[in-house]
Amino acid sequence: MPEIYPLEWSNERLKILDQTKLPKEQAVIIANNYIDVLDSIKSMSIRGGSILSIAAAYALTLAAKSVSTNDVQKFLEYLENVIHEIINSRPSMDSLLKVTYKIFDKLNSLSTVQEMKDFVQKEAEKIHKEDLSINYRIVNLGENLISTGQTILTHGNTGALSTSGYGTALGIIRKAHESKKNINVVVTETRPFLHGARLTTWELAQLGIPTNLIVDSAAGFMMINKKIDSVIVGAQRIAKNGDFANEIGTYSLSVIAKQNNVPFYVAAPTSIIDIESANGASLPIEERNRNEVIHINDSEIAPKSISVTNITTDITPHENISGFITESGIIYPPFNNTF
Amino acid sequence: MPEIYPLEWSNERLKILDQTKLPKEQAVIIANNYIDVLDSIKSMSIRGGSILSIAAAYALTLAAKSVSTNDVQKFLEYLENVIHEIINSRPSMDSLLKVTYKIFDKLNSLSTVQEMKDFVQKEAEKIHKEDLSINYRIVNLGENLISTGQTILTHGNTGALSTSGYGTALGIIRKAHESKKNINVVVTETRPFLHGARLTTWELAQLGIPTNLIVDSAAGFMMINKKIDSVIVGAQRIAKNGDFANEIGTYSLSVIAKQNNVPFYVAAPTSIIDIESANGASLPIEERNRNEVIHINDSEIAPKSISVTNITTDITPHENISGFITESGIIYPPFNNTF
Repeated sequence: MPEIYPLEWSNERLKILDQTKLPKEQAVIIANNYIDVLDSIKSMSIRGGSILSIAAAYALTLAAKSVSTNDVQKFLEYLENVIHEIINSRPSMDSLLKVTYKIFDKLNSLSTVQEMKDFVQKEAEKIHKEDLSINYRIVNLGENLISTGQTILTHGNTGALSTSGYGTALGIIRKAHESKKNINVVVTETRPFLHGARLTTWELAQLGIPTNLIVDSAAGFMMINKKIDSVIVGAQRIAKNGDFANEIGTYSLSVIAKQNNVPFYVAAPTSIIDIESANGASLPIEERNRNEVIHINDSEIAPKSISVTNITTDITPHENISGFITESGIIYPPFNNTF
Repeated sequence: MPEIYPLEWSNERLKILDQTKLPKEQAVIIANNYIDVLDSIKSMSIRGGSILSIAAAYALTLAAKSVSTNDVQKFLEYLENVIHEIINSRPSMDSLLKVTYKIFDKLNSLSTVQEMKDFVQKEAEKIHKEDLSINYRIVNLGENLISTGQTILTHGNTGALSTSGYGTALGIIRKAHESKKNINVVVTETRPFLHGARLTTWELAQLGIPTNLIVDSAAGFMMINKKIDSVIVGAQRIAKNGDFANEIGTYSLSVIAKQNNVPFYVAAPTSIIDIESANGASLPIEERNRNEVIHINDSEIAPKSISVTNITTDITPHENISGFITESGIIYPPFNNTF
């Protein structure tokens, strides 16, 4: 099996696979400083919950390395400013805040700038490795839910490209394939970014997994005609009661799946569970630039003058979910306030 | 208000507004013979339930005119072959069969080829005019369902471009706007053809109606967040019990609307009601070329190697429908077998 890595840290630089160029071209961005990393986040060259956290940790590493002062106070002030820039590179992604402050807060126990620089890098590498290990645990658990010969629908991209490698929801599909379960995959194109059409199909093609691409709104047809055995998606953030935020269209898919008695699973690491949010109402929604709807690649698909509501996140209520597949186990409903 | 006409018959030729070029360019195809008309149907330069029937009637007119024989039998044989070609230009469109045989069957009462040629043309012009008059009746009835200040979601294109002029579902929206009801419209982009993004937004922009474009899978977000007061769509064909075939994604929209208590109306002429079909199971489904998903304009959005299921029609069960708006009145549930 070919391995796909969206990020590689080597020789004090971060290599970023430019996901905006896929599937046409496998271009690599060499980030020599944290600004390069943030530019890649802003341009969506790198996207996906887990991998953004890891990129943020490496951005902090690159920023720390670039500081020439030996004054601990000045160093920490600089780093905190960088953290604000990191968070603002993709404001709806809470994981950017979480991961950077998790590292930053631990620096207080150290005494020299050099120790702090080394610590930031070690933490980034540790987070990177841990994510991969969490993915393996998720896919090993999740694969048990898939029976031989099933057709699984997935939305968005939750494969190696969204994570440190292997993936979560798509990782489970891959694992079922590797276990020779003769599965089929139906991938929604996932507008506006076409993460399904551009990235998920590309990953599945690399892995030799039988795949059918459909437009987002064909999912209903497939489900009512019993062409889908289960749906597995990822999550960007999960509230205490099991409501979760994810790429736009996830909510609609969950309603149609429930209507047609198709099991609907969410695969995600426990790190994205937000116990501060009692339910979906307090989870962040992302609204992005109109051009992402009006243009597809360089092609204009609608009159320039038109208004656009480009909501790219929606909230799925826990009632629609058959189970959460996490690295700590599969959690089944009722979720209510006990998730 | 600017009028938009997808077809114009003048000087023995059919002028076809090339809908594949919209919204960038308002190009007109001059069809001098029936082959030109069929090419326009095949390439989707002309599409939409009602207007395809009218185009078929004019294709028959052009074919009839081109015949040089005075032998009635030979003339009818030729015309019947043309009818088969017309039907095969878009096999799932039952209206092509209906309209052409409706004209053809009446030719038996005539005695000369010249009478028949004149009759075919008069019938085509009559069908064209009748469609416009039906649209006016539909929009006048449908407009009563819209209250001041409402936001209406529509899917696909059901405006002037799909009909002889004015439109059905989109015509109702236009009529509400002309009645100064201060309405807003949310238009789904409607993959794969982007009829919403390319055509509906263009028509609405021409008419100066406030419009927001969204990706298909954002409709769920809009409905659960109470941003949509009602949904109005068109139909390609309606079964006896009220199940209906329409552009892909209509079924999903109906499920999400029902889940969120958003009224869901279908506007269509009674001519598309198929009393031979007891329910949706016998309505035809269209599956089209993979390239329509893989390419958007000239841009490739997925790896070439990937399989595609390009279903472009789905069936919405009557249970999800709040009412049918036809030229003969608004029909409310229960539909069951009494529609």
